[in-house]
Amino acid sequence: VSERVNRSITLVSRPKGLPIDSDFAMTERPIPRPAPGEVLVRNLYLSMDPWVRSAMSHPSMMPQTMVVPGDAVSRVIESKHPHFHPGDVVQGLLGWQDYAAAPWYALRRIDPRVAPISTALGILGGSGLTAWFGLFAVARIKPRDTVVISAAAGAVGSAAAQLAKLCGCRVIGITGSEEKVRYLVDDLGADAAVRYKTDPAWQSKLAVQCPFGVDVYFDNVGGRVSDAVFPMLSARARVAICGQIAEYARPIAATGPRWLGLVLGRRARVQGFLVTDFAPWFPQALHGLTAGLRAGLLRSRETIEQGLENAPRAFIGMLEGRNVGKQLVKLDDPFPRTCP
Amino acid sequence: VSERVNRSITLVSRPKGLPIDSDFAMTERPIPRPAPGEVLVRNLYLSMDPWVRSAMSHPSMMPQTMVVPGDAVSRVIESKHPHFHPGDVVQGLLGWQDYAAAPWYALRRIDPRVAPISTALGILGGSGLTAWFGLFAVARIKPRDTVVISAAAGAVGSAAAQLAKLCGCRVIGITGSEEKVRYLVDDLGADAAVRYKTDPAWQSKLAVQCPFGVDVYFDNVGGRVSDAVFPMLSARARVAICGQIAEYARPIAATGPRWLGLVLGRRARVQGFLVTDFAPWFPQALHGLTAGLRAGLLRSRETIEQGLENAPRAFIGMLEGRNVGKQLVKLDDPFPRTCP
Repeated sequence: VSERVNRSITLVSRPKGLPIDSDFAMTERPIPRPAPGEVLVRNLYLSMDPWVRSAMSHPSMMPQTMVVPGDAVSRVIESKHPHFHPGDVVQGLLGWQDYAAAPWYALRRIDPRVAPISTALGILGGSGLTAWFGLFAVARIKPRDTVVISAAAGAVGSAAAQLAKLCGCRVIGITGSEEKVRYLVDDLGADAAVRYKTDPAWQSKLAVQCPFGVDVYFDNVGGRVSDAVFPMLSARARVAICGQIAEYARPIAATGPRWLGLVLGRRARVQGFLVTDFAPWFPQALHGLTAGLRAGLLRSRETIEQGLENAPRAFIGMLEGRNVGKQLVKLDDPFPRTCP
Repeated sequence: VSERVNRSITLVSRPKGLPIDSDFAMTERPIPRPAPGEVLVRNLYLSMDPWVRSAMSHPSMMPQTMVVPGDAVSRVIESKHPHFHPGDVVQGLLGWQDYAAAPWYALRRIDPRVAPISTALGILGGSGLTAWFGLFAVARIKPRDTVVISAAAGAVGSAAAQLAKLCGCRVIGITGSEEKVRYLVDDLGADAAVRYKTDPAWQSKLAVQCPFGVDVYFDNVGGRVSDAVFPMLSARARVAICGQIAEYARPIAATGPRWLGLVLGRRARVQGFLVTDFAPWFPQALHGLTAGLRAGLLRSRETIEQGLENAPRAFIGMLEGRNVGKQLVKLDDPFPRTCP
């Protein structure tokens, strides 16, 4: 990376369904100079998150000429605000680029001695927080609930699976491959996992694993996966709608089974949420997640792509479910991996 | 009515969609004799409720040879329990028949001096309670919410419209005819009402009446009515699924628009409920409803069919939406109409 140039990834055509490589372009601009109150950072890790795909469809959220937005962990190069100093590690919405200037209040300081800095994008960042509030605030899990999680081996799903197990729930994951089934059951302690992409009997196997129905459905996927889970909801079931990646990744039928009658009969609650709704409670949740990670109760697996130029490929792979755990793009990491 | 015979309506064939007259038959049996702990009653009013249609589809809830179940207000003829005496007025699930014997604990005593006894089936009974808990416990309405109610001129809908107005909400009814629009706006104080059956522009008119979106949707109908309301939900909207009469009344497409993505984006909550879920709080709610009725803040309109033999016709009419307010079948009423 030239020290004089800021490379960034922009969108050149708005994707339909799954993005393709040619939807993206690399542009070079001068490194920005921070204004008073701003901080100049060098991005170290980029977070590949499904919400970015949603943003790409909305001109108001993402004009085509804009740097692709995204969460990042970064190191401060130059600070025009007394709260930050060169060398500090921060997390923020800093985009798919080598360098970024951001106002000081848009940054969260990360302590690299606590955990690998990349976890600030995963289990100790958006993914862990999303799992935490989805389970505890939206679905209100309690011990002995049967919790079904879609995209269970993804960043949010694997955090949710572990938190639900810690809470004393029975956890069944819905995932895409045998490798992910093994990861969920052997590494994360899920009670069972089913492969919806490659196992024609996955619905039966899911039903057998939920003999008393599904008390909580933590949904990252939507589409036909959810079509199969809804009829298994138990009385007073709670459905946390966290993501609908099936709708981002490829065209799906715009219609599906009607199930308001089922929601009525089961007295179910279906609730959508965004993790930012819970921002006032982030410190408490991060305290709990950090303690869990350091105590070895939570694990953080990452799938890491190298280099900014490979961010589009990593992003498309994440939407296709090729990652296990958190999908990151590593630009640089000056810190030793200190912890789990 | 012969004093020696108990006429009752039974189901002779299980209806598909809307029931027809020939699905029902009148049978005559001896008047039951109450066992110890039981009370013999003469039914005075029968309540025509959509849930009975659901029961007809479930052999476990309603074997074909069974008297059609249903809520009734009745007078005690003979009591084998010291809590009740001949002449008492009671409410309970006493079925479509002239006489019924029921255990004492299945009956609620009604005071005919408080309000017309028929209101114990409507605004001071299941309908009013359903509206109360749907709005306050499930949807958690608050002042200035825009509340949209489907089947708004029905028994539950008209109670909900009035309670939401009392709570300071903006109330828009979805209903079937111009007469019902006038009833909602002129008599019940709704801010507006639209005719979904006969006005091709009803969706536009609804949207215009909800310039900031729909904060609360109280759904008694489902089907294409709900398909139209869901896209209007505002951020943090709450949907109380109270009934799905569109699914009981006639065959509807088993598929409809997918809207989990919308529930996610709007952070909406969709919750089904049965009023019996809230039985522990019925006394408090009935206290509030009774006070509202006696103070003239709540109105109770009834559509009354005469005679047990006409119960099937009244029931079918209710499912088709021919009633305004509460649909009742009157068998007898020995009390003067004392109050609103």
